Amino acid sequence: MQQRAQDTRLSVIEGAALVFAELGYGNASLTDITRRAGVTKGALYFHFTSKRDLALAVIAEQHALVLAAGAEIGGSDAPALEKIIGLCRMFGRQLIQEPIVQGGIRLTFEASAFDADVSGPYEDWIGTVEGLLGEAQAHGAVKSTVDPAAFARYLVASFTGVQMVSNVLTSREDVLLRIEQMWDFMLPAILPGISVQTPAPRTASSS
Amino acid sequence: MQQRAQDTRLSVIEGAALVFAELGYGNASLTDITRRAGVTKGALYFHFTSKRDLALAVIAEQHALVLAAGAEIGGSDAPALEKIIGLCRMFGRQLIQEPIVQGGIRLTFEASAFDADVSGPYEDWIGTVEGLLGEAQAHGAVKSTVDPAAFARYLVASFTGVQMVSNVLTSREDVLLRIEQMWDFMLPAILPGISVQTPAPRTASSS
Repeated sequence: MQQRAQDTRLSVIEGAALVFAELGYGNASLTDITRRAGVTKGALYFHFTSKRDLALAVIAEQHALVLAAGAEIGGSDAPALEKIIGLCRMFGRQLIQEPIVQGGIRLTFEASAFDADVSGPYEDWIGTVEGLLGEAQAHGAVKSTVDPAAFARYLVASFTGVQMVSNVLTSREDVLLRIEQMWDFMLPAILPGISVQTPAPRTASSS
Repeated sequence: MQQRAQDTRLSVIEGAALVFAELGYGNASLTDITRRAGVTKGALYFHFTSKRDLALAVIAEQHALVLAAGAEIGGSDAPALEKIIGLCRMFGRQLIQEPIVQGGIRLTFEASAFDADVSGPYEDWIGTVEGLLGEAQAHGAVKSTVDPAAFARYLVASFTGVQMVSNVLTSREDVLLRIEQMWDFMLPAILPGISVQTPAPRTASSS
């Protein structure tokens, strides 16, 4: 694609991300998006066939953007467990600073409204965390009894909830603090040298 | 309200919950809902003024339903920490079994699409968990160093993410398993008699 066409495409995606982040999928119109992107409807339709098509492009761009930032952390020579913590912090900062990430995440939560399968990004993150946890275990930084797949799934799910509830209750004002607290509560389960005392009776509740 | 009117109102809410759970707010139509509820449009409009009004009623009914089940657990004489675990399991079962809960939760995630403030239910749950945690601390079942407000917020956020990601990846097939794993990973942070070893120096817990 020519540079100019590429620039226009990115402008449209950025404009769309802003509008989707603000209004959600259902309330966003292509007119809002062309206005925000500063392009004509013709330019928009040159690159995208529908609102749904645009929403999928915003999600893909958001995921690519976070993965790129993640690759930098992944490629550093920090210990694996620190990389996982670093990835969470990086994602948290992007949720505050990057309109494309804000739009992409809102669309991910609303994905059923336009029949989009968003399992891919979740699976990517779970796989990345699982790999890093295995590495951390090999170096003795994570208890050998931890199941990396189960913990990776838990971490990605928890993170998703932490940022979502932070958005509902504080418009993400406290998201970085809540991510730190998440780690405070998570580390005791995976750090070595901790003897876990299982709770006395954890049988099914009487109800 | 007369019994018959009350029955109709509940039928409409149940029909709406099924349709919202299946199609989401944006794609649901009042025609779908009257068909599913087996009522006329006139009967629907006797009780509700709009799709938004109906969505808010489904969320309220869902929250009331979960609170009622929660009150039973809360009123039992189980230890406080077991009550919290029991509440999570109960909510998990309702997410699998109760169409009103399924519809209400989907609408809660989509709430921005119809300008609904859903912070109330989150705050209710955080408050309930915080109270029970304080009780558990008073009985020595939870470490005195744990901040009940911070942990309650974390638990509600984590639970939200766990059930959401379970829905995306397995249509909730594994949600009960993931809730048990969540507790396996959470308990080491709050049970007494566990010395926490962290990478960075942090306040030593007296346990």
